[in-house]
Amino acid sequence: MRLIGMVTGGDRGRRQVTVGVVTDGAVTPLAEVTDFYADLPHWLEEARAAGRGAVPLAEVELAPPVPPSARVLCIGLNYRAHAAEGGFRPPEHPTVFGRWTASLSVTGTPVPVPANEPGLDWEGEVAAIVGARLADAGESEAEAGVLGYAVFNDLTARTAQKLTTQWTLGKNADLSGPIGPIVTADEAGSLADGLRLVTRVNGEVMQDGDTRDMIFTVPELLSRISATMTLHPGDVIATGTPEGVGYVRTPPRLLTPGDVVEVEVERLGLLRTPVTDASARSGA
Amino acid sequence: MRLIGMVTGGDRGRRQVTVGVVTDGAVTPLAEVTDFYADLPHWLEEARAAGRGAVPLAEVELAPPVPPSARVLCIGLNYRAHAAEGGFRPPEHPTVFGRWTASLSVTGTPVPVPANEPGLDWEGEVAAIVGARLADAGESEAEAGVLGYAVFNDLTARTAQKLTTQWTLGKNADLSGPIGPIVTADEAGSLADGLRLVTRVNGEVMQDGDTRDMIFTVPELLSRISATMTLHPGDVIATGTPEGVGYVRTPPRLLTPGDVVEVEVERLGLLRTPVTDASARSGA
Repeated sequence: MRLIGMVTGGDRGRRQVTVGVVTDGAVTPLAEVTDFYADLPHWLEEARAAGRGAVPLAEVELAPPVPPSARVLCIGLNYRAHAAEGGFRPPEHPTVFGRWTASLSVTGTPVPVPANEPGLDWEGEVAAIVGARLADAGESEAEAGVLGYAVFNDLTARTAQKLTTQWTLGKNADLSGPIGPIVTADEAGSLADGLRLVTRVNGEVMQDGDTRDMIFTVPELLSRISATMTLHPGDVIATGTPEGVGYVRTPPRLLTPGDVVEVEVERLGLLRTPVTDASARSGA
Repeated sequence: MRLIGMVTGGDRGRRQVTVGVVTDGAVTPLAEVTDFYADLPHWLEEARAAGRGAVPLAEVELAPPVPPSARVLCIGLNYRAHAAEGGFRPPEHPTVFGRWTASLSVTGTPVPVPANEPGLDWEGEVAAIVGARLADAGESEAEAGVLGYAVFNDLTARTAQKLTTQWTLGKNADLSGPIGPIVTADEAGSLADGLRLVTRVNGEVMQDGDTRDMIFTVPELLSRISATMTLHPGDVIATGTPEGVGYVRTPPRLLTPGDVVEVEVERLGLLRTPVTDASARSGA
């Protein structure tokens, strides 16, 4: 199944997001996004029983399909060749940094370059969405606890990222985390079996990776993280990017206003992101 | 004014939190927490107009007074003597790492030590709560955009924190971020004028600091952060801890089950946190 977030109203500055299931180009709305994850088994059953959707997909205003409280745990240096291109050795432990859902956006959303950055860098990724409560979970429990996968672009403000030892600020620029629909695990298969991931800038291929080259698998990541913090349905693990990011190129290449970056992952879909200038800062 | 979060219901795994204002030991409920921050000027006016509260404070189940979407931006190494005790030089830029609201708790909540940690470390802090949208804000705009301050304890899983270069995992253990009521800025005053902060473990003083020793002031922090990411009402800046944490002591001292840690800040109040074992892992 393919699950999307859709804007379904909201007032006084508060936007309501509903999760829907997509069938044949049309959407069946299921539940408000926090309610959806609070009773996931029920809503997945409803989704499986849904017929052809009532709302044409083209008429939907997309939203990230995760609740506001979700934690977006990003894994750095999880592909050997990407770690090497940044001058890092392959890690013994997953490098975890955080995004908040406020930085998430969807395909088509223009992403502004902050005024104090020379541009944004791309990092095409696959995100895993958690579908169960995981505390001190073993790898098989963790694997069964994956709801599905989505395309993700971990657009990075490198100047802010490198100001100090901690990357958090540069990983949370406004709207800098476009995320796609969730393809449930039964359809997406295991990342360890390999999904091709391609990142293009203005049509030129910049990254061409395969999820089978990940150092830590999704079950390993979830299991290790769950030893410290309990994961909840709706939490997101961005599994890292393959080699080919912009800042390590000679000369460095960053996204500037007018550029368009695409991330495409086999079986999961395509994210298309136009880059714009800081006057579009919204933080919505 | 003193603003609290209070649990006011919820079903199907979803808890409802309401913000209330405390007067003379009783609470006037104002609005659901996300609604509260979506129209903050209105609800602050209601709060100012409130008479004596209808609900005795002792009957309230406290909750963190921020919305699920809030970003908890923690500043590392923001007191000279604390940076030095960890072997760091005073930073040129604020070191920002992240917590998600899922790790927040309140006074009295027992906090479990993860099974793979020898204990938790204390970091008594003052948190600033954002009260306005701040994008590329100067320091005076940022200062006017502070809703208020709260006592905070940035309880840290040091093993997880130090596994890699990124501290995020060790800063998000279950329930490890107790936060107090919000004292509005008009009552709390400026941190730069000095608020005494004392941390005690089983009654023994471990930290005795003053907020006037902060390297970056709250307006500086908000201004710099807002150059990269737009801050929203309800976001939290944990402003760093003074010297006297546990892991750098000889011998190291960490909190283990049965210990009680208190953080008390002049004008803001007291947080009291019993420490328990991993069987209490809840992640609620």
